[in-house]
Amino acid sequence: MEVTQGIPITPKHWKELVAEKKGRQAATIPKEWILTNLPPKDKLSVIDFPEKSGLLTARDIEITNTEVDELLSKLAKGIWSAVDVTTAFSKRAVIAHQLVNCLTEIFIERALKRAAELDEHLATTGKVVGPLHGLPISLKDQINIKGLESTMGYVSWIGQYAEKNSVLVDVLEACGAVLYVKTNIPQTLMWPETYNHIFGRTLNPYNRSLTSGGSSGGEGALVALRGSPIGVGSDIGGSIRIPAAFNGLYGLRPSYGRVPYAGCVNSMEGQDSVPSVLGPLSNSLGGVKAFMQSVASKHPWLKDPLAVRKPWNEEEYRLVEHGAGKKLCFAILWHDEVILPHPPVIRGLEETKRALLEAGHEVIDWKPLKHGELYKTLGAIWAAGAAEDYRVTTSATGEPVIATMELAIDNPDFVPSDIPAFRPLAEGVSAYQLWQIQKYKRDLRQEYLDHWNATVASTGTGRPVDGIISPCAPYVAPPHGKNKTASYTMTWNSLDYTALVLPTGLFVDPAVDTKKPAHTFFSDFDKTNYELYDPATFKGAPISIQLVGRTLEEEAVIGMGEIVDAALKERLVPAKL
Amino acid sequence: MEVTQGIPITPKHWKELVAEKKGRQAATIPKEWILTNLPPKDKLSVIDFPEKSGLLTARDIEITNTEVDELLSKLAKGIWSAVDVTTAFSKRAVIAHQLVNCLTEIFIERALKRAAELDEHLATTGKVVGPLHGLPISLKDQINIKGLESTMGYVSWIGQYAEKNSVLVDVLEACGAVLYVKTNIPQTLMWPETYNHIFGRTLNPYNRSLTSGGSSGGEGALVALRGSPIGVGSDIGGSIRIPAAFNGLYGLRPSYGRVPYAGCVNSMEGQDSVPSVLGPLSNSLGGVKAFMQSVASKHPWLKDPLAVRKPWNEEEYRLVEHGAGKKLCFAILWHDEVILPHPPVIRGLEETKRALLEAGHEVIDWKPLKHGELYKTLGAIWAAGAAEDYRVTTSATGEPVIATMELAIDNPDFVPSDIPAFRPLAEGVSAYQLWQIQKYKRDLRQEYLDHWNATVASTGTGRPVDGIISPCAPYVAPPHGKNKTASYTMTWNSLDYTALVLPTGLFVDPAVDTKKPAHTFFSDFDKTNYELYDPATFKGAPISIQLVGRTLEEEAVIGMGEIVDAALKERLVPAKL
Repeated sequence: MEVTQGIPITPKHWKELVAEKKGRQAATIPKEWILTNLPPKDKLSVIDFPEKSGLLTARDIEITNTEVDELLSKLAKGIWSAVDVTTAFSKRAVIAHQLVNCLTEIFIERALKRAAELDEHLATTGKVVGPLHGLPISLKDQINIKGLESTMGYVSWIGQYAEKNSVLVDVLEACGAVLYVKTNIPQTLMWPETYNHIFGRTLNPYNRSLTSGGSSGGEGALVALRGSPIGVGSDIGGSIRIPAAFNGLYGLRPSYGRVPYAGCVNSMEGQDSVPSVLGPLSNSLGGVKAFMQSVASKHPWLKDPLAVRKPWNEEEYRLVEHGAGKKLCFAILWHDEVILPHPPVIRGLEETKRALLEAGHEVIDWKPLKHGELYKTLGAIWAAGAAEDYRVTTSATGEPVIATMELAIDNPDFVPSDIPAFRPLAEGVSAYQLWQIQKYKRDLRQEYLDHWNATVASTGTGRPVDGIISPCAPYVAPPHGKNKTASYTMTWNSLDYTALVLPTGLFVDPAVDTKKPAHTFFSDFDKTNYELYDPATFKGAPISIQLVGRTLEEEAVIGMGEIVDAALKERLVPAKL
Repeated sequence: MEVTQGIPITPKHWKELVAEKKGRQAATIPKEWILTNLPPKDKLSVIDFPEKSGLLTARDIEITNTEVDELLSKLAKGIWSAVDVTTAFSKRAVIAHQLVNCLTEIFIERALKRAAELDEHLATTGKVVGPLHGLPISLKDQINIKGLESTMGYVSWIGQYAEKNSVLVDVLEACGAVLYVKTNIPQTLMWPETYNHIFGRTLNPYNRSLTSGGSSGGEGALVALRGSPIGVGSDIGGSIRIPAAFNGLYGLRPSYGRVPYAGCVNSMEGQDSVPSVLGPLSNSLGGVKAFMQSVASKHPWLKDPLAVRKPWNEEEYRLVEHGAGKKLCFAILWHDEVILPHPPVIRGLEETKRALLEAGHEVIDWKPLKHGELYKTLGAIWAAGAAEDYRVTTSATGEPVIATMELAIDNPDFVPSDIPAFRPLAEGVSAYQLWQIQKYKRDLRQEYLDHWNATVASTGTGRPVDGIISPCAPYVAPPHGKNKTASYTMTWNSLDYTALVLPTGLFVDPAVDTKKPAHTFFSDFDKTNYELYDPATFKGAPISIQLVGRTLEEEAVIGMGEIVDAALKERLVPAKL
């Protein structure tokens, strides 16, 4: 209890603060967009609902179903106005929110004003403001926009309005983008699912009994429902790629500093060894490319001291260092020797292998090197000070630190203290001890790079492996509370490799993705994971893969991603007809 | 005392280990190059001695007095053989060592064998091996070469022979360089002077009562005596630039990761927030450029996981972002509001200003922003775990951790324990506390970048300031034990700005650089520093400046450096005649 001038002040209970904030959020939703025909809660797949909701006009549907390249082209030509496009995506975003609870801040009025200015600019000058002229872009909650809150799901941060834009917001606005919503996250951002005390839980639109992933889970669900053409997430251990994978999207985890992060809020700030990075989620690879190319065009390194001075490199995109992309050698990581992925994940890898071979590329096996060590090391670096960070942040209101993503936590009276935490609330270590862990991680990075370079002996291309194809997780989107490891994404954060998630176009089919007989388990967790699999549970979940390139090789990974994507579409789309 | 199988083993006293190692070092010096006509110890300037030593032929003198560009050209054309060039620099390096004690490992036989192979290659194929074909390059002791020791001045590391080359050694050899000596450093590398229990103290060849600086002090002294055309140093707080400045050389501190560091030994490994960097010292800016361009040409990012993927950028070198270099705006940092530099340092800045104005550029004043905070923050990050790092490293032999650079330590019986340490041997902090310091540093970096960008209002070029001209230290080379702050270099490490040291061509002249009346002191240290100045003490010391550009702007800083260098030569060289 605080005491001011002798008078004790009883602070509001954190639940009161939540109620106030939720009231303010509700008031930002245009009343005429509140639906009364929502599907029942037990309707699992809602992916098709927006078009049937009755709220979207045919034009709205056409706009929101259009991919980014085409949207940008129509916006630049004035065929579609920024106001029309912003209206269509805003409506669809609000529909999505009512289906899967994906938004935090909603500021459509402000967005429409901005869109009108952009239309005016184009009409007057005949020129676009920048390469993203008129395109709505949604942002993960932590990305500061002047005048708005970035609670990041912390009750203690309610009412803190950003005093200035994050650098990325300035960059995107300079590119002509229209910002209109921010999206849901887990408290701390350090969970691969999306729940917090303020905004609650985000669901997977393909199957609402499954998680949308996290921490950029709001983005994943929103973009999948086509409530946003490009969403910006962040990724310190998989937080862009897990939601991209679980929601059937393209999602890029760039290398440290490639996209400006300055001016965002975050957990564990000052942890300099494994920085979180910002990156895009989109329904097309064109959306990923447009985002990366546009951001680089604004020289973010002149505005963010941690952004890397590296302009978009067209030669790298054209795969000059990879034999011009004519015959690539991919290596598939079937499992990491820690956890065997579930049958649908394996099927995704197998189909990708076939597609690449049919397209004339080489495919070999990737031998994992100390993935378990990389995973543990990253966790140890976070654990070095995470608990104290969370305690300090939550102490202002006494809100509980969330220690589970199980459904039980949706109950407002649930007390999470005796559930084992995903991140142990340990006491931390000394700076010297942290340095020893970081040194070990550096040594592992060197070993891994040498391991990669040594593949030159087995590719047949004269080059080391061009890209690694990896699972995104040992499962497709699992039920709420069951996403207990991010090892298949964290590995690449430890190594700072560029990693792109792509949908295979496949979805879990219980008739095809049957349970396999038990294998010799790598670990107890592998056993638990095996037992988790039941084809019916995962029905309809998208199957995705991860394409991994070297550090700061964003251009080449996008270039190779286009090749993989085309191969998968060539193979699988006709098969669906 | 260790005990093995019940029998106590008395380990050798650390002084015995030192005596053995020194004996081995002495044996690597070719006997015929041991001089008997060395100047007396009280002869302060030895800079002209090598040419008068009688050991160098006219050809040796011509070769060693030639600048890098010309050396490379003559080597490539076969006008001078690699064996001749290696012999000449080896002889001069051994002379230098006898004058100022600058070498650690000496491996001339191995170098001559390599040089002969290079000559053979050129003779047979008509082609050079790479852009540094036949050029001898000296290395700071910490840079591992397979089969050699890298004691780094730690008695505890005597007898540890490197099992493989550092990445830079592989890169330099792929470029055709000849490695022949490694150079002296202070124990821990964390001092701006050069003394350790094994190899002793390195002296300044311009005035042996002054320090050669540190931690790359062996390089500074060696290159100044033209015992090496390019020396490689490392810099975490000024360790390339301080020796470059104190010895009248060009020295570049590149940004984090621009030059591959993998495979070197170091103090405080795992400290990821302010990494040490490698970079060149040379007698010409051409040497600096040749080194940077050559290293980048070998794609070090494919071999070192922490090396930045950034090829040499010719556009940046041509100053495309700086108006093609036609009319630049430099800003001079006259003092950092913490310590006022001594009169010779101010004179160096004034002459630079005049030279740049005469060359048609703009020169304005640079307003320092929180330099004291940046300095303290960097120190706090190191102190977080440094003491434990030093204790662990030295515990194997019980050698004392060096806590002073005062002359007293040259006495083998000196016990340093009650001298206040330059780096306090504190107990360290928790990882969480370290993160808070690192977060503060990040915020300072953002403030500083905004501060720089805001200068666009006062340059008159339409751009922010192109480069900052800064002192290298508050003094020119001071007497041994008196280099007690590195604030004028550490600032730029905190910010990760590219920083190039250039000689002005001026030297301390007691008749010109008279003591000024006392000013209002910024701090106690400022007062102490004022009192340190006595023109006679610093006689003959070179006067240098520092040119600072943005992060990863090595190309542009070299390009601007050429402009500054030409302006200084235009102004000052004729004046000397």
